[in-house]
Amino acid sequence: MNPRIQEVAQLDRLIHEPARLMIMMILQGTGEADFLYLQRECGLTQGNLSSHLLKLEEAAYVEIEKKFKGKRPLTICRLTPKGAAALSGYSRRLVQALQANHKGKGQPRHP
Amino acid sequence: MNPRIQEVAQLDRLIHEPARLMIMMILQGTGEADFLYLQRECGLTQGNLSSHLLKLEEAAYVEIEKKFKGKRPLTICRLTPKGAAALSGYSRRLVQALQANHKGKGQPRHP
Repeated sequence: MNPRIQEVAQLDRLIHEPARLMIMMILQGTGEADFLYLQRECGLTQGNLSSHLLKLEEAAYVEIEKKFKGKRPLTICRLTPKGAAALSGYSRRLVQALQANHKGKGQPRHP
Repeated sequence: MNPRIQEVAQLDRLIHEPARLMIMMILQGTGEADFLYLQRECGLTQGNLSSHLLKLEEAAYVEIEKKFKGKRPLTICRLTPKGAAALSGYSRRLVQALQANHKGKGQPRHP
């Protein structure tokens, strides 16, 4: 298998899903964000966002803290160091594969 | 919605699926390739590769020519100009979003 194709084969599928990629990119950019902000930024329903956050929390990519601001419940989401490392590995791998591919033109491959 | 997050929301999902991304990257690199070469390079079963190729053919991203070399059937796959443009748009959009995200650190977002 061509090395750049192998990079794509080995991409972290948990992050590759576009909604989860958006969530992780936002948290990488902001440090932390509350549920409503993420919902608005990602354009996701409450149910979809909850389900994606649960998957990211299970992988220990995101940590979720439920607290109150006055009487208002607040769900704060943060990227963990493990999540930040996973996102940056994913990103490096994918950018390299896409950029390398753009440069190298090869030969037709058939018998 | 943040512009770089919007880029991710608008990614072409047909190409984003890793197996189809691999197929298109290989065809972009080689010009054309036969079914067995693609199967080996992508590490896909015959059934999976057929089903992904069918989706790419339906979108007119790939064209498929069945011919014979002697008595041996040969299935040649090519990226169409539409497919090449879609892959390069996808690639540009994703690389920009990932690279922009890596640079800009923002503020926590919660009330």
